[in-house]
Amino acid sequence: MPQLDTARFLQDLQELRQIGRFRTGVHRPTYSPQDMESRRWLVAKLEEVGLEASIDGIGNVFGRHKGPGPHLLAGSHIETQNEAGWLDGALGVIGALAMARAGLPVDVCAFADEEGHFEGGFLGSKSIIGELSEDEIDRSRNRSDGTPLRDALRAAGLEGLPRMQIDPSRYKGFFEMHIEQGTQLEQANLRIGVVSGIVAIWQWRLVIDGQQDHAGGTTMAERRDAGLAAVRLLAAIDAEFPRVCGPRSTWTTGRITLEPGAPSIIPGRADVLFQFRDVSMEKLEQMEATLRALVQEANRRERCSIQLIAVSKATPAICDPGMMRALSAAAESLDPGCSQVMPSGAGHDAQYIAKTMPAAMVFVPSIGGISHHWAEDTKEADLALGAQVLVEAADRFLKGAN
Amino acid sequence: MPQLDTARFLQDLQELRQIGRFRTGVHRPTYSPQDMESRRWLVAKLEEVGLEASIDGIGNVFGRHKGPGPHLLAGSHIETQNEAGWLDGALGVIGALAMARAGLPVDVCAFADEEGHFEGGFLGSKSIIGELSEDEIDRSRNRSDGTPLRDALRAAGLEGLPRMQIDPSRYKGFFEMHIEQGTQLEQANLRIGVVSGIVAIWQWRLVIDGQQDHAGGTTMAERRDAGLAAVRLLAAIDAEFPRVCGPRSTWTTGRITLEPGAPSIIPGRADVLFQFRDVSMEKLEQMEATLRALVQEANRRERCSIQLIAVSKATPAICDPGMMRALSAAAESLDPGCSQVMPSGAGHDAQYIAKTMPAAMVFVPSIGGISHHWAEDTKEADLALGAQVLVEAADRFLKGAN
Repeated sequence: MPQLDTARFLQDLQELRQIGRFRTGVHRPTYSPQDMESRRWLVAKLEEVGLEASIDGIGNVFGRHKGPGPHLLAGSHIETQNEAGWLDGALGVIGALAMARAGLPVDVCAFADEEGHFEGGFLGSKSIIGELSEDEIDRSRNRSDGTPLRDALRAAGLEGLPRMQIDPSRYKGFFEMHIEQGTQLEQANLRIGVVSGIVAIWQWRLVIDGQQDHAGGTTMAERRDAGLAAVRLLAAIDAEFPRVCGPRSTWTTGRITLEPGAPSIIPGRADVLFQFRDVSMEKLEQMEATLRALVQEANRRERCSIQLIAVSKATPAICDPGMMRALSAAAESLDPGCSQVMPSGAGHDAQYIAKTMPAAMVFVPSIGGISHHWAEDTKEADLALGAQVLVEAADRFLKGAN
Repeated sequence: MPQLDTARFLQDLQELRQIGRFRTGVHRPTYSPQDMESRRWLVAKLEEVGLEASIDGIGNVFGRHKGPGPHLLAGSHIETQNEAGWLDGALGVIGALAMARAGLPVDVCAFADEEGHFEGGFLGSKSIIGELSEDEIDRSRNRSDGTPLRDALRAAGLEGLPRMQIDPSRYKGFFEMHIEQGTQLEQANLRIGVVSGIVAIWQWRLVIDGQQDHAGGTTMAERRDAGLAAVRLLAAIDAEFPRVCGPRSTWTTGRITLEPGAPSIIPGRADVLFQFRDVSMEKLEQMEATLRALVQEANRRERCSIQLIAVSKATPAICDPGMMRALSAAAESLDPGCSQVMPSGAGHDAQYIAKTMPAAMVFVPSIGGISHHWAEDTKEADLALGAQVLVEAADRFLKGAN
């Protein structure tokens, strides 16, 4: 039976942590020199464990198992958010490397730009399943500084390289290990989360048009205050969504922009970024119906016009029951009672790979739930247990022993 | 009896409109070349009507009547908001010039920076009543580009000039004509507003601290969403303020900043600019008490902490009853039934001058209520009537015939 080399696993994690180190975390934005250094470092590691390693035209690092199947695919991403944590992404990549090191028939992949430094995001996992067109690459720009993706690829030395696609028939399934990025496990005093599904994010823009006016000269009755209409609508969402949502639905207003944004001017326009998430398509559709009804009601009540714009509507990814059983059984055998089944509230590469093959994820706890921040951390014993669960579950799943 | 030279009054307005012309409006930000050109133009005009004219060290243009008293003071401001209207401020200055031309014993003043291009605002009217210190001038910067006020004064050629102060005992009162900047007169089909008082603006900042978190990993129950706490508080203000406000109170949220302002991050901080206005000190205090109670209630209910910061609390200016009667009587004699008494929702130089002497304002309608925009306009007949009312009311007030 394949055995995890725990010491090597932890050592690989610490080595990778030194590339782009920032305080106790790392800074490896997609295609930055630090990010490319980490990709080259990974190529060498993959070769060291006997895989056939390459980097493709979108930056995906791939290590192909040379032996016979049935094969597994495993991995995650290696770039990070700015000045962010050392485990987000890296854990799944090094976990997959550990699976290969343990002798499992696994192809390892570090998908490019899961973190979405470039418009679109998930460039690597989309590209590898054939869902990223050349047109999309032409159009995408860095969200911070506007650099065209093509220019970034050229600067990173990736221009002209072929983009690889996976053949799903080669694989029995895809495993991704990740930190939880929440406090559910910690609060329940558990160490392993077996992910039941990855929520879909439905993103919206609410654009409210009123009339910009002088805040002194215009009476309350005369006003068409776009900011006030936004506040009333968001308060209505706050009141109504709890009635229709599922037990783990979330909804978030990330930004409210009032124009012109001056203390003595009644806002003539409000622009709101709103999103909700769930693993259930039915709940997502109920939330959309509620949102649309509230906007319609507001358009009847307010003296402003409210436009609801759908920015993106993803499909939730449901994890494979057989792989989930293998993960739960492995966790139970290694540390009885240490795990629970739970949804992932964040997006992951697995949601794209799940479109082509069975997929599953395993979570380890995040200390204090901190994520996307350099203070992000997980206890070493939990990291080790996560990797052990991953290796044992992969073995069980390949053997059909679940 | 002094008579308005209507043709000259309208011609002067049109002449001034050519300086810094922008479409049908003007662009004369404080101390810009266009603004300084308009001040020099005014000096010449004041001398032409026999006044002793000068520009002082803050940019106030002053024309002193050479004959015996009792005197009146009249005027407004000559700079404009960016790409703004041709009448806001200019009307009161040219109206005062027309009073002098009609033979009234009037000192004419164009106060600098009523529009507040520099921090503090109302620099000229504050300076002339002795309420602008050298320290404040040292600290003040241009709100758009950060230029220190001292540098702007130097560039405008005003450095080193003495700042004049008025001797209130010289004056029986101060008159200011202005456009309404609202639609009260237009909607009531009236032509003259006799201002009862100038609202005080009480400005606030609401700073709400929560916990920045991942919008997917953090359940609704765990969140400390600063943006949501802001929305709930603003919705509570929207519900409660109508119960405590006066008939012409206004309250406005001009800006809501959520940090970091990204679609998938729960805002850790919200910063809100809020203000209310009224002419009644009692109503202002009731609104403050309500605001404080709502903040206290929110601090008990929310999982965020809300700080209420008072940015500025002005004192409302009450117009002089004798001067108001003179304005109403003049309006009634020139066009029976054409006027109403009304508060000014916007701030004006008169609110500072009113601290030292009796003061009054007369409003003419703004077409469509448009202001702080180049499309701002008023019918020529209303402009003429406003100036006629001003001249006749000044005469009546000086003679004590009201």
